[in-house]
Amino acid sequence: MKILKELMIDDIKGFHTWAKHTGVKKRRNDLCIIYSDFPCVSAGVFTKNKIKAHPISISMEKIKNPITRAIVVNSGNANACNGPTGLENGNLMIEKTSLVTAIPEKEILIASTGIIGLPLDMDKISAGLFSFKAHKSLPSDAAEAICTTDTFSKHLGVQFNIDGKKINMSCIAKGSGMVHPNMGTMLSFITTDISISKEMLNEALQESIIDSYNMISVDGDTSTNDCVFILANAQADNTLISSKDENYYLFLKALDLLNTKISKMIAQDGEGATKLIETNVVNAPTKEDARILAKSVISSSLVKSAFFGCDANWGRILCALGYSEGSFNPDSIDISFESSKGRVQIMENGKPSLYSPILAKSVMDDTKVDILIDLNSGNEKATSWGCDLTYDYVKINGSYTN
Amino acid sequence: MKILKELMIDDIKGFHTWAKHTGVKKRRNDLCIIYSDFPCVSAGVFTKNKIKAHPISISMEKIKNPITRAIVVNSGNANACNGPTGLENGNLMIEKTSLVTAIPEKEILIASTGIIGLPLDMDKISAGLFSFKAHKSLPSDAAEAICTTDTFSKHLGVQFNIDGKKINMSCIAKGSGMVHPNMGTMLSFITTDISISKEMLNEALQESIIDSYNMISVDGDTSTNDCVFILANAQADNTLISSKDENYYLFLKALDLLNTKISKMIAQDGEGATKLIETNVVNAPTKEDARILAKSVISSSLVKSAFFGCDANWGRILCALGYSEGSFNPDSIDISFESSKGRVQIMENGKPSLYSPILAKSVMDDTKVDILIDLNSGNEKATSWGCDLTYDYVKINGSYTN
Repeated sequence: MKILKELMIDDIKGFHTWAKHTGVKKRRNDLCIIYSDFPCVSAGVFTKNKIKAHPISISMEKIKNPITRAIVVNSGNANACNGPTGLENGNLMIEKTSLVTAIPEKEILIASTGIIGLPLDMDKISAGLFSFKAHKSLPSDAAEAICTTDTFSKHLGVQFNIDGKKINMSCIAKGSGMVHPNMGTMLSFITTDISISKEMLNEALQESIIDSYNMISVDGDTSTNDCVFILANAQADNTLISSKDENYYLFLKALDLLNTKISKMIAQDGEGATKLIETNVVNAPTKEDARILAKSVISSSLVKSAFFGCDANWGRILCALGYSEGSFNPDSIDISFESSKGRVQIMENGKPSLYSPILAKSVMDDTKVDILIDLNSGNEKATSWGCDLTYDYVKINGSYTN
Repeated sequence: MKILKELMIDDIKGFHTWAKHTGVKKRRNDLCIIYSDFPCVSAGVFTKNKIKAHPISISMEKIKNPITRAIVVNSGNANACNGPTGLENGNLMIEKTSLVTAIPEKEILIASTGIIGLPLDMDKISAGLFSFKAHKSLPSDAAEAICTTDTFSKHLGVQFNIDGKKINMSCIAKGSGMVHPNMGTMLSFITTDISISKEMLNEALQESIIDSYNMISVDGDTSTNDCVFILANAQADNTLISSKDENYYLFLKALDLLNTKISKMIAQDGEGATKLIETNVVNAPTKEDARILAKSVISSSLVKSAFFGCDANWGRILCALGYSEGSFNPDSIDISFESSKGRVQIMENGKPSLYSPILAKSVMDDTKVDILIDLNSGNEKATSWGCDLTYDYVKINGSYTN
């Protein structure tokens, strides 16, 4: 099983991407289509926010179709809270995508991201779509076209074998702000050439998001537009996966690996972030306790601010554990910080360790810092990812629509 | 019923405050005692954080005593997560307070606020307490002595009549950071000369915190040290309130008024805040829905950042309503912003209104801004208070222990 930065969607047999700058965003690409020459089975997870963007409502229906062949995505405008016109415009985007790609409307999924509540500029989007044949784009353009305030585009591939056949899987994703996925997740689109039934693909995706996308938090805000889609076009020639056999679990392992790496990239590129923070909770009484506790620490504004300032204010970590719903024994906790600069134990058996504040500061002064929390009260573990809370987060979000 | 800024704890018959700078904090007063010449009944609410500071554990026991006469409070150090020594030092503070005030230990409550996990400097605190008789302080010093990063001290009084007798009630409180009370609340100490049974005092306090302290959020972090105490010394000569009669509800109304005003002061003085944000949810299906929705909006980092930048990014308000557990119909919502600069309707029947962005910006550019959310789906309402998220919040919390 190999993670490959260079394995892009266009490298997977039958899959293509196309991207364009239509003018909805000022400079960067803002529209893309991911499509397959061959029919795919698909699965999706969607935001649990009660306010759902129009593309979400549309895709929740379209995903039921046995065959999917394309995803059309725009950025710069979330097409959320736009009333009946929002729904019309979402359907219009699919209609025009169908026209230019010759893929039936029911086989096209849709997603949008950007500002909530502004009408979509359909003139720009339509003109963009109608240039589908004339305009050529690079394989790297699609990952950029789905970004908003992201500072780098997120794409990654994984390669593994099933039945002696090489399976390829690739993903593009966006993150940055309004990131606190809750059962649905962020924008993430995965393509693979594996042969798998729609039912098993769906099971694997639902399973895989729990410890990847659902374990990240930038700011505690769950978006109206979160979704993950996966398309599998069966071009790898493996025996169809139609039950939870050994091959299913191999696929799930690869999917977990991909989703986890992508989740870390999203957390690392949180709005204004200067560092990725990883929280490892180990030896928890239950898996669910481990997840809740890890997520609570990574969601605390006070913990995030302290990491920005490299201030080993570990009391805030204990505090965030304490106000979560997770169970643990405060008197048996060990806490350490670790980075490429070294490791420092902060707390042992629930009591502060005698550590050097200078060492702690230097360990925290890195672009990735791990918080290791050993609860010493069981055998379960979970990991969450987030970023520091910085001046730039406030700056970016104080003038987002301006 | 009159709110009186100048009615301080020392103005209530039999109550006194004493405050001192011991050196635990660099400059400001950091130790105080609130005490009564006469026996009081008392009630308290405490943080629901599973990590409880040592003074919280101690006071949860002491509050059971039928009589209370004093509260000793220090700031600059939370005396939390300090192991057995923390508990010893908390008890030692009570012991020494008892020695200098001649009030039995079981009649003394204790609270601390400040940095978590640093041992209390008992030499400084003891020396401070032993100067009780020699050192004179002003009535305004106690409110200052319980502050941490607060930029102003919070005290307020209320005066009302029961049985033709004038009742006085006064409160001092601290807020600023780690403010997201959950059933317990922030540090707040209330004294009154009313005659009331311990049981009724407790009922009234439990009732009153729900729509006051529990409806504020600065940063979503519930502190290890939150508590509210109320002491009533029966010097007003009203007939004892021992059941939920008319006088009980009059008292409750006064207590609500006081707690609500204090809660707003805490929200207004949130760490780094430039403005107080009030969220009014009206015409909700149930009271609990109204509370949950109002609290979700005021807790959103994205909403708070937008208000800092005077950016009418109302999609974030809808988003925060949507990811909460509260029920509402997205298609019937009206939203307006209001301040001393005017009022602007942002949304009507779930659709964006045609408003002037310049007007919206000017309305938001004030030290108090109201978000009015009419759900048009019931008769219940709730109000929450918070503040904007600013560069200074990050600055303050990036170097708190330094």
